[in-house]
Amino acid sequence: MRSTKPSRRVDAEVVVKPVKLPKGPPPAAPPCKVAILGFGTVGRSVAKILWERPSARARFHVTYIYNRNVERKRVSWLPQDVRWTDRIEDVLNSDVDVVVEVVGGLNPAEHWVRAALQSGKSVVTANKQLIARCGPELAALAKKKGRHIEYGASVAGGIPVLSGLQDGLSGDRLFRVCGILNGTCNYILTRMESAGVSFAAALKEAQEQGFAEADPTDDVDGYDARSKLAILARAGLHTEVRPEEILCCSIRVIEDVDFMYSNMLGCTIRQVSCAEKQGRLLYASVQPSLVPLASPVARVHSSQNLVMATGEYGGETVFSGYGAGGNPTAVAVVSDLISIARRGEYAMNGIPEVPHTPRKVTSDFTTKHYLRVTVKDKPGILYSVTRICNRYQINVDSVLQKPGFPKEKLPFVVTLEACKAATVEKAMKEIAQLEFLVQPPVCLPMMD
Amino acid sequence: MRSTKPSRRVDAEVVVKPVKLPKGPPPAAPPCKVAILGFGTVGRSVAKILWERPSARARFHVTYIYNRNVERKRVSWLPQDVRWTDRIEDVLNSDVDVVVEVVGGLNPAEHWVRAALQSGKSVVTANKQLIARCGPELAALAKKKGRHIEYGASVAGGIPVLSGLQDGLSGDRLFRVCGILNGTCNYILTRMESAGVSFAAALKEAQEQGFAEADPTDDVDGYDARSKLAILARAGLHTEVRPEEILCCSIRVIEDVDFMYSNMLGCTIRQVSCAEKQGRLLYASVQPSLVPLASPVARVHSSQNLVMATGEYGGETVFSGYGAGGNPTAVAVVSDLISIARRGEYAMNGIPEVPHTPRKVTSDFTTKHYLRVTVKDKPGILYSVTRICNRYQINVDSVLQKPGFPKEKLPFVVTLEACKAATVEKAMKEIAQLEFLVQPPVCLPMMD
Repeated sequence: MRSTKPSRRVDAEVVVKPVKLPKGPPPAAPPCKVAILGFGTVGRSVAKILWERPSARARFHVTYIYNRNVERKRVSWLPQDVRWTDRIEDVLNSDVDVVVEVVGGLNPAEHWVRAALQSGKSVVTANKQLIARCGPELAALAKKKGRHIEYGASVAGGIPVLSGLQDGLSGDRLFRVCGILNGTCNYILTRMESAGVSFAAALKEAQEQGFAEADPTDDVDGYDARSKLAILARAGLHTEVRPEEILCCSIRVIEDVDFMYSNMLGCTIRQVSCAEKQGRLLYASVQPSLVPLASPVARVHSSQNLVMATGEYGGETVFSGYGAGGNPTAVAVVSDLISIARRGEYAMNGIPEVPHTPRKVTSDFTTKHYLRVTVKDKPGILYSVTRICNRYQINVDSVLQKPGFPKEKLPFVVTLEACKAATVEKAMKEIAQLEFLVQPPVCLPMMD
Repeated sequence: MRSTKPSRRVDAEVVVKPVKLPKGPPPAAPPCKVAILGFGTVGRSVAKILWERPSARARFHVTYIYNRNVERKRVSWLPQDVRWTDRIEDVLNSDVDVVVEVVGGLNPAEHWVRAALQSGKSVVTANKQLIARCGPELAALAKKKGRHIEYGASVAGGIPVLSGLQDGLSGDRLFRVCGILNGTCNYILTRMESAGVSFAAALKEAQEQGFAEADPTDDVDGYDARSKLAILARAGLHTEVRPEEILCCSIRVIEDVDFMYSNMLGCTIRQVSCAEKQGRLLYASVQPSLVPLASPVARVHSSQNLVMATGEYGGETVFSGYGAGGNPTAVAVVSDLISIARRGEYAMNGIPEVPHTPRKVTSDFTTKHYLRVTVKDKPGILYSVTRICNRYQINVDSVLQKPGFPKEKLPFVVTLEACKAATVEKAMKEIAQLEFLVQPPVCLPMMD
């Protein structure tokens, strides 16, 4: 565990001269001219940090701010010489060094980012959709132009997980990246858990608090998280996967009764994103899952994020913190700006890992499952369910039935021993046909 | 929390050409010649990873391995052309590109690292003592020579926390860095906690398991952790502090009864290292402390490490994983090698933060305290203790006394409301003089 104690011997043959440290502050580099595309929560926070922090103010000058109907966005605390515009060409034809894209979405952001790189500007973006879809291509374009593209804010906001995987853990051979990548889902699920409220009530609360959008589809149905998972798989597992190839299951099916039953099993429920490399296969999915209360994943509360990377040599490394919100996301953007300023004209030597293209992307994890069936009570129900499981050679691990539910709508839970998810899915389809069911069955993987 | 939805409008004036991605693997760079100084657990793991991982094997050639009495260290799984030597001059006069120093200790490692840099080699080191003491000076020497020095393994082994603070969170203004930096102490304390054994028994176990050295002083008395804390304060808080300026308290005073009482208070005990910047003051200490069971710090088990960084903008970010052991430490070393190979000849533009030199380093945190007094029971004891507290205007928060202890050696606990540590220390000195004490009192800070 520890390095060996050194000898006290000093080799006389090795002559070493002392070095004088330079006195005073380092010489000032010319400030880096920055344009911000999108002056919403994140854009405003970026401008604020660049203006408030003396060291950042000396390095970076925000010279352009682009937004649609920009007049309503103007703030008085930025210097007078900032040019506010709603014409993107003003920015693209300007002399800015770096364009910060915090508009989000694919269109027109993709177009603008390409144009910025083409015109010789570096880019910092928080855009997970864009990077998941065309990260390598944009990086190649940046390299060709002798510029940089950075996207630390595209996954897990303020948590420096991309640099952690790409640089800090580059010495390991990572095979699994797992975590909680969507703050909205986590807010909703932890509210359901702690306040015992329904999904609908928790969603409404999240919307009122600004943690969810009017149309929550992207978040609650897993599309947001799967873009981030695709980026993590690229950065950590050197594996290219398109977001569409990743199975997404919505958290809308979760009811408060699921938390009750999970708790009896020593678990809680989280939206878990997981990618795991096994030979030429990539297992990947974004699903609400049962997680043991003792796991770090269970302890992620409110809108926080967590990423757990597992490597052959270093074991599990965990990164957690605020994965969303104006300020944490802006911290990631400003860190990327600093990184670009530090590197200046020099491109990295590269020597990248050869990206591994999986033969197949699958969600067919071998795992235990939690199966909730809601029925109109009558004799023989458990027999019918277990008979189907038996036919697929799925072993039932436990049956849980809490008292106090109405006979007309009685939820009970069957946990299944570890088996292939695809097998469980087939059994589920048959179970869903049973005539005594009053709503579709809910089936969730259980994390070890 | 989320960026605004983009418009679907595309600006006709902006013309973007598609980019072709290069096909096939990237062109091979010449391999980087590496010497390893010290072929103990970490050195062996470094060689193993560089040899086992195909991508690493293509980039790095281990050409020299130095160790005292090197013959007993030879392994058969490394290629024949590796030169094994016990003459450091062989390495220093060779054409290696990077010297990996995993010998540890100040002397002669400092001498060798300087000599390697002087002779135009880059250096990767896991040496916390060396980096805590002369990191900036060695970095300046490396820069002067157009070379690099990296030391990701010097703090928290496999957890990429230094790059996280210096790069990933550079956009924030961090003011506190806190955590569990010594795996040996954590192993001992978590064994005492879970198995209810004494400090001596847990230490013996740690030694048998290879988690503690024959002389455990460096670890259990906090000297190891304070070097790491000094490096973290420099990387995250841009504050220079000498290890000797940081208060160290040993965990030797902790008894199993302290875990019993801590538990009654909803806490457990960990060796906590903490540095916090407040204006021109730096609060810093390494102490066994009570930590709430709900805190991430309480959930660090066995020899794991954890670092929690708190910033003005991004809030709390947590890094955790394996902070020690051959493989995790070697992952950090290999990651540093990769980082040097990626940068090649190019030095970073630098523009470092101007380091802040604190006017004063202090351990005078304002905090709640846990005070255990072990007495020969007689009337008036609590009165005597609380009278002293009262004289120093320290408010008693609670008094705990478990039944079942012998009257001749009765431990009881007083918790104190938040006040300055220095005030508590003065009161402690008086309490220590009370004639009914059968052993010195134990006073621990309580984390919020």
